[in-house]
Amino acid sequence: MHAFAHLDPEHVLAQARALDRGAVRGPLHGLPLGVKDVIDTFDAPTEYGSPIYRGHRPAADAGCVARARALGAVILGKTVTTEFATFPPGPTVNPRDPAHTPGGSSSGSAAAIADCMLPLAYGTQTSGSVIRPAAFCGVVGYKPSFGTLPRNGVKLLADSLDTVGILACSAEDAALLISALTARASLPIGQSVPAPRLAVCRTPQWPAAQPETVALFEELPGRLARAGAYVGKLELPAPFARLEAAQGTVWEYEMARNLADEYYRHRERIREPLRAQLAAGWAITAERYDAAKALARDCRRQLADVFADYDALIVPSAPGEAPRGLEATGNPVFNRIWTLLHVPAVTVPWTSGPHGLPLGVQVIGRVGDDARALACAHWLQASGQPAV
Amino acid sequence: MHAFAHLDPEHVLAQARALDRGAVRGPLHGLPLGVKDVIDTFDAPTEYGSPIYRGHRPAADAGCVARARALGAVILGKTVTTEFATFPPGPTVNPRDPAHTPGGSSSGSAAAIADCMLPLAYGTQTSGSVIRPAAFCGVVGYKPSFGTLPRNGVKLLADSLDTVGILACSAEDAALLISALTARASLPIGQSVPAPRLAVCRTPQWPAAQPETVALFEELPGRLARAGAYVGKLELPAPFARLEAAQGTVWEYEMARNLADEYYRHRERIREPLRAQLAAGWAITAERYDAAKALARDCRRQLADVFADYDALIVPSAPGEAPRGLEATGNPVFNRIWTLLHVPAVTVPWTSGPHGLPLGVQVIGRVGDDARALACAHWLQASGQPAV
Repeated sequence: MHAFAHLDPEHVLAQARALDRGAVRGPLHGLPLGVKDVIDTFDAPTEYGSPIYRGHRPAADAGCVARARALGAVILGKTVTTEFATFPPGPTVNPRDPAHTPGGSSSGSAAAIADCMLPLAYGTQTSGSVIRPAAFCGVVGYKPSFGTLPRNGVKLLADSLDTVGILACSAEDAALLISALTARASLPIGQSVPAPRLAVCRTPQWPAAQPETVALFEELPGRLARAGAYVGKLELPAPFARLEAAQGTVWEYEMARNLADEYYRHRERIREPLRAQLAAGWAITAERYDAAKALARDCRRQLADVFADYDALIVPSAPGEAPRGLEATGNPVFNRIWTLLHVPAVTVPWTSGPHGLPLGVQVIGRVGDDARALACAHWLQASGQPAV
Repeated sequence: MHAFAHLDPEHVLAQARALDRGAVRGPLHGLPLGVKDVIDTFDAPTEYGSPIYRGHRPAADAGCVARARALGAVILGKTVTTEFATFPPGPTVNPRDPAHTPGGSSSGSAAAIADCMLPLAYGTQTSGSVIRPAAFCGVVGYKPSFGTLPRNGVKLLADSLDTVGILACSAEDAALLISALTARASLPIGQSVPAPRLAVCRTPQWPAAQPETVALFEELPGRLARAGAYVGKLELPAPFARLEAAQGTVWEYEMARNLADEYYRHRERIREPLRAQLAAGWAITAERYDAAKALARDCRRQLADVFADYDALIVPSAPGEAPRGLEATGNPVFNRIWTLLHVPAVTVPWTSGPHGLPLGVQVIGRVGDDARALACAHWLQASGQPAV
């Protein structure tokens, strides 16, 4: 599957044996964890998906890696990322069909979970880089509320957007990991909300939905209701239609400035489409950037009222199945606005599309109320999911 | 003064000669810039004020350094930081009196400016690490609105607070640098607002003010009015009284998690008071942290109304003169809430205290309206300042 950028079986076994010899370190004792290769590890190369950093050895673990180790996790390997967690793909293929993209940028983490190489892995999301690959590979992807996991040692791309997330086999597993890492009240393992109030929302990005997603969302409200949910429909207020473009502006503007060193000193080793995007980022005026951030702040304030009557929004995870081909990682169009809004998002595998590839649905919660979003996702997996 | 953690005169001259040979790169062409040693440089060691990182050589320039170089700046050297930009001091002394602290954590940048070794330097502020050393050393310190300068390659301490800032000889110089870096409309060089509307605010931290600050704030409104400002007095709403503690909570909680690798693998090489603070950070519950962040969000929303009638707030920069002794860097009590509120802050040297050491006053602006805060600071320097 080409899921790993770096994998050293001897070193993995040495970590496991050391854990076997010692006392139980914490709730992750012995758990294998994959780490996306934009996240630093002191004992393995971290290359950020870029030839500029071939063989690069960070001096320290990222905060999120160090904490997982302290709780007993075994770092199984570094998983493939696209170039600097942007769009030029790595070598990973989709385990459901290797002719199709696994999605990106957390490509290796999603593929490794889908192929049962790993139970849990770190990813990062700046546009749709946790939710989209998870949906394409048929696994659970969880982007926490912005700022939930520390970013020291994570290669910064866009400071207002970058979020460390989790790829997992189930919402329960994702909840277990985030609970252990943050000691934050979370999903009581094995339980779910009895009758969640869910608002099905097609979002302003609906024209991007492919036929399989259109069909899915036609049958979704009925299925959720029959499984015991209170189901409503919801449209986002008008200003939310401008959020997708605003996310693109913030992403391009901040990315250019954070990757300034690579852009100025190593431009010829950045792939052409990313180089062009960095140039476009430098051309964005501060005024346009400020306006995009102001719109995001306004919409964040409005959002709490928008779904005050609901536990969660249910929105598409991606336009459709994973596209054929490995030259691109698919479209984050259904993820961008949620990243900018800083809300928790969880995709769960739901059904399959015309090529038999997975289709997910995405649960959106309130900022800081990740527990409820995970509980709704768990309910979807446990109660609502059609037989695939 | 022990202002530099690393200084290589040959390399500085080589940079300058290369600039002399080439075309003008941009508005910073040939300008010497100091860089606080928590900010990565590819061509000089970056040690974060910690023996753990002795001789550490980053692979890349931080985004803010790369951009300054691209505009023609000469990186003169790395300036001393306290340990990981927290409180255990470095060796720097106060150029106004070497028996007194220069403040921290941007100690070296402030001292180098005060001693006329440099016209401009980068600092960072998480509690009061730009404003306090600037005030203690008698220079201008400018903490931009949160997120104004990119943080890629800056050692993360507290993700919700860390802000790259500028130490300078004048508000005009600081405005010149931020304009060049961000291409954001800023202070028209050499001009200032003709009659700024200024609200003098003693803040909930007023009990920490020392006699020299009490005296300064007694004569301040009259002096500002005589110089042509419209002057009012303002008290912050009640919830703002809880912000100082909230900043401490966010700082401790995030710092522990970002410095997890250092805490777990190198604990014995972290100085005792910081080690204790990291342990305290791990003990903070997620609920207390979430409550602190929620209070900050609420107060940010209120703040725009609080000083709707004014161009800026005028508040103390520090409790008083730089304390005697080099074992501590002074108290950030008058800076913490503004860092948490994400507003622009500028300290300008104003008068001197009982030991003849500098006293500053701090200008607070609205988030994103750094131009107005800098213009008011310039006005204070040009029009309001008493003869020292």
